[in-house]
Amino acid sequence: MKRYQAAIIGYGNIGRFLVEAIETAPDFQLAGVVRRPESVQKSSAQLKGVPVVTALSELDAVDVAFLALPSRLVPKAAAEVLAMGINTVDSYDVHSDLVNYRQQLEPIAKNHGKTSVIAAGWDPGTDSLIRCLFQFMAPQGITYTNFGPGMSMGHTTAVKAIPGVIDALSLTVPVGTGLHRRMVYVQLAPEADPKGVEQAIKQDPYFINDETVVTFVPQVQDLIDMGHGVLLERKGASGRTHNQQLKFEMRINNPALTAQVMVAAARAGFKQQPGCYTMIEIPVIDYLFGEREKIIGSLV
Amino acid sequence: MKRYQAAIIGYGNIGRFLVEAIETAPDFQLAGVVRRPESVQKSSAQLKGVPVVTALSELDAVDVAFLALPSRLVPKAAAEVLAMGINTVDSYDVHSDLVNYRQQLEPIAKNHGKTSVIAAGWDPGTDSLIRCLFQFMAPQGITYTNFGPGMSMGHTTAVKAIPGVIDALSLTVPVGTGLHRRMVYVQLAPEADPKGVEQAIKQDPYFINDETVVTFVPQVQDLIDMGHGVLLERKGASGRTHNQQLKFEMRINNPALTAQVMVAAARAGFKQQPGCYTMIEIPVIDYLFGEREKIIGSLV
Repeated sequence: MKRYQAAIIGYGNIGRFLVEAIETAPDFQLAGVVRRPESVQKSSAQLKGVPVVTALSELDAVDVAFLALPSRLVPKAAAEVLAMGINTVDSYDVHSDLVNYRQQLEPIAKNHGKTSVIAAGWDPGTDSLIRCLFQFMAPQGITYTNFGPGMSMGHTTAVKAIPGVIDALSLTVPVGTGLHRRMVYVQLAPEADPKGVEQAIKQDPYFINDETVVTFVPQVQDLIDMGHGVLLERKGASGRTHNQQLKFEMRINNPALTAQVMVAAARAGFKQQPGCYTMIEIPVIDYLFGEREKIIGSLV
Repeated sequence: MKRYQAAIIGYGNIGRFLVEAIETAPDFQLAGVVRRPESVQKSSAQLKGVPVVTALSELDAVDVAFLALPSRLVPKAAAEVLAMGINTVDSYDVHSDLVNYRQQLEPIAKNHGKTSVIAAGWDPGTDSLIRCLFQFMAPQGITYTNFGPGMSMGHTTAVKAIPGVIDALSLTVPVGTGLHRRMVYVQLAPEADPKGVEQAIKQDPYFINDETVVTFVPQVQDLIDMGHGVLLERKGASGRTHNQQLKFEMRINNPALTAQVMVAAARAGFKQQPGCYTMIEIPVIDYLFGEREKIIGSLV
């Protein structure tokens, strides 16, 4: 069986777990990792036997590229890779820009006869699939998405940008009905003013609407744990029958799940017509490895 | 906006809830209900203003027929309705026959340019979607489907067929890791032998492999409750990361949810190429009412 040749662009948390998800998938093979020139040597040592290059064009016959980059760099990279005639998969997570981003990639994907599966992580991603399911099972009602407890990358980055902060960690803690508390752990520079830093955090747009608790610690790295989770809840009506109660909950290693979902999305991308897709636009069976009728026989 | 004209074939529990699910859907209209001749007069009284007929051909311009019949009658009815050039939706629940049933309908649907969405209830149905999701999120591991507590139609019918039983109710109670206890409530005929009936139940193929508790009660109807539920659990590995914990749980009115899922499946059926589909073969977005980009903007 021919395996899909996969490249990983970026080698942060998700990139590292993508290596494992690709290596354990029966239908994929890792063609190489694309990194910034200054990082190539470091990762060559970690990635024994895997080509590490500075440009995707240096790798031969790549079928799909996984964009394991910060979200703000993803749209430009996706457009460039698609224009090279290579499928893309990303876990772009800016919910408010998704419709726009999809519209932007759609003509590029079609013109080059390729597919792009965007926002293929867990939220957006598998949580989106669940929200759609809940919506059609009980069309009238409210769905609450409760995140955590777990580390928020966006919030953590925002705190790290504040002057006087050496290192930081922002935990998202669910307090019910889709509301969250932010538990922020900060390692201060010796000369920094704790009161001023705390105020700067609480006034940041990322934190201003949520209950925020700031704690100063000597060493943030000692607190890091990749565990995360979500609780999706809906109480609604099916037809005229109220009080239908639906719940989805998971406790997971965050980058490991994201990487695994991206591999499934890449597999599904090869089964779609050229174009740009969010996960809810693809039949769920297409994410799975194996023969169609065997899957129907065992999972339906 | 033109609404899809829908017929309901059969008027048992699911048929009754289909009336409500169709009436509350913004894109469907109830064209009529098809019943056996001996039942037509009774339901005409209940179904004010809705045509009640004895054959689907008596109704004009039907776009889709909901087969709300016992599962054993569904395959023949589906083939006949498709051959009339009308889409079908059913909640056929014989898991072991699904692949075969789908193969049987596929050419008929294609020949008549119509779609058939089969096994569109909650198990098989929405639970199947969740099982697929769990499978690609953590490809290595075990998924347990724990049903209930709730009434099992199949088991109840099996008990009712035993001589000496006037009325019966079989409750499915989950005992964990996909195993179940059967709590059977029986209303005996005056002359019946309780020991003999209990033995007959426990030796029935429906019960022989499960812990089964038989209780004799004066009036089974007093115990009937349409509530049901399921807990789907998976602990598995994403890539090389183990202990990923996934859970889906619902507590619902059983026929109300089944009817609502069937209406969503009918809507999705109109968006597919001619053919026969299980729910996992259809993009989740297609089950929802509304504009594509609005759905992506609000649920992804």
